[in-house]
Amino acid sequence: MSNITTDICIVGAGPVGLFAVFEAGLLKMRCHVVDALPAVGGQLTEIYPKKPIYDIPGFPEILAGDLVQNLQKQIAPFHPTFTLGERVEHLEKQEDGSFIVTTVAGTEIACKAVVIAGGLGSFEPRKPAIENLESFENKGVTYMVRDPEDFKDKRVVLAGGGDSALDWAIYLAGICKELTLVHRGTSFRGAPESAAKVTSMAEEGQIKLILKSNVTEVHGSHKLDKVTVMVNNESPYEIETDYFVPLFGLVPKLGPLENWGLELEKNAIVVNTTDYSTNIPGVYAIGDINTYPGKLKLILCGFHEAALMAQSAYNILYPNKKFVLKYTTVNGIQEL
Amino acid sequence: MSNITTDICIVGAGPVGLFAVFEAGLLKMRCHVVDALPAVGGQLTEIYPKKPIYDIPGFPEILAGDLVQNLQKQIAPFHPTFTLGERVEHLEKQEDGSFIVTTVAGTEIACKAVVIAGGLGSFEPRKPAIENLESFENKGVTYMVRDPEDFKDKRVVLAGGGDSALDWAIYLAGICKELTLVHRGTSFRGAPESAAKVTSMAEEGQIKLILKSNVTEVHGSHKLDKVTVMVNNESPYEIETDYFVPLFGLVPKLGPLENWGLELEKNAIVVNTTDYSTNIPGVYAIGDINTYPGKLKLILCGFHEAALMAQSAYNILYPNKKFVLKYTTVNGIQEL
Repeated sequence: MSNITTDICIVGAGPVGLFAVFEAGLLKMRCHVVDALPAVGGQLTEIYPKKPIYDIPGFPEILAGDLVQNLQKQIAPFHPTFTLGERVEHLEKQEDGSFIVTTVAGTEIACKAVVIAGGLGSFEPRKPAIENLESFENKGVTYMVRDPEDFKDKRVVLAGGGDSALDWAIYLAGICKELTLVHRGTSFRGAPESAAKVTSMAEEGQIKLILKSNVTEVHGSHKLDKVTVMVNNESPYEIETDYFVPLFGLVPKLGPLENWGLELEKNAIVVNTTDYSTNIPGVYAIGDINTYPGKLKLILCGFHEAALMAQSAYNILYPNKKFVLKYTTVNGIQEL
Repeated sequence: MSNITTDICIVGAGPVGLFAVFEAGLLKMRCHVVDALPAVGGQLTEIYPKKPIYDIPGFPEILAGDLVQNLQKQIAPFHPTFTLGERVEHLEKQEDGSFIVTTVAGTEIACKAVVIAGGLGSFEPRKPAIENLESFENKGVTYMVRDPEDFKDKRVVLAGGGDSALDWAIYLAGICKELTLVHRGTSFRGAPESAAKVTSMAEEGQIKLILKSNVTEVHGSHKLDKVTVMVNNESPYEIETDYFVPLFGLVPKLGPLENWGLELEKNAIVVNTTDYSTNIPGVYAIGDINTYPGKLKLILCGFHEAALMAQSAYNILYPNKKFVLKYTTVNGIQEL
């Protein structure tokens, strides 16, 4: 546990959080950046560092990892400090209007303004609305395939119509004793070649394919032993199974931020477009985590939001100073 | 004179106008770009191609000219077309909701949407509020020094306190028969070394320096022969002179756009931040030329504005299609 004092605490070290350091630095405000991930760059580092991005203005093509490196170089003159590998937990407003942000590890960051640049938050599986489903978690119900060998020679019911459901159906059919794929529609959202493969495997009897259907109930005493499938919303029947694996994709979760008293809308933080401030004075939200009319979840939009945020945060830190925008072309960058 | 048909007519080929081609191209909309300047890049090409910019996200430093080249490369897959060296003059809305944009040279561009990315517009000298001043233009009154030799052995009254006034006072003092510098304050806004030089030249009698004063009247029959100087707002006296040169800087002018029926505020086009649309449906304004609460005249903000504009323009071009945002990382760029 350590205590840090800074001007602005930035929650999230993705590209937008990093660029916020730059915009704050131009106004001579120091930043401390916190991220649950062990490295800076957010999704760019975690999910697609070697993938090219084509829509960063001025870069016909740039690898995600290189963009992160460039941003790190761009903010270096402002000497940001970092707490990585710790998720923020609490936000506490002090009497003097300043804040203390606390991480799960107990690190306390005292600051004048908080900028939430948390991207899409953390991801959690989308769970179907089935009564008692959660009580069977790890007792036959799981939302992802961690190790296919877990399902060896078992009876498995998969549910879903996307790539994840199709790909695992094809793969697990060769491992399981019996594989059933339940899908609410008649066509699949996943890749056409995967859908064709599943269809032909069903015709050959390798996969039991149940279309226009939903799993509506789960049953068992200590562990799952059967599920109820409703066909066409009217004909329920039961399938004995060892596992039920709903694969309905991931949904982003705000996590502890949900308890900070922020105005939320569809899992995003509501901001106004004048300065990307939230309903809590002194707390801003920029990048994919915020929402406003016209919002696009693009990195380049987060950059803009960071610039307007910094002007507003400056007024909080220096309420009596008038800041005059100066172009970097004229003045260059003054190291902090 | 030629006729062009396109999806979107972009007025202004500066960095934001160029990037608008990219954002439109991602949505499969074709663009034609018009600019009064003979080359693309706007101010970056015209004023500071060899100057580094430090605040383009992802570029710790980039020469303005290189940014323009990168943007040209980035939009190349969408094959934009250009009319350069022609200022736009008229905007005419057709009965079917489409537009015809006409340039001074008579080029007509038929389009479904118009995006004004005109930067700061064109620049014109700031004129002091003196009665009849304009009637003496080119008859002794001028707002810029085109050729110093024009003033050789003449009596010249300069007005102003910035770098332009100081620099020309120092330079012209060695050419004119008599040089007077009138400045309303007691200190100068220009570079301290220039101010010191003017002060010492005044002490040596090379410059007649009149502080805390304004030129309030101009006189003459066919041409200027004297000006009235008001000292401390109370003691007027006259100075005989051949030239009066007010050097109060340049102000941006919207030019013909002022007559398009757009809602204006302080020489900028009012837009809403949902899609950067103006009060005329189908006409957008992005970059330095627009204004809204929190507006910053930064290139990176114009990039964001271009992205949101494109989504909205798409709805105009394809009112019945629903566009789903796809990331370039996933789908790459499809050439138009």
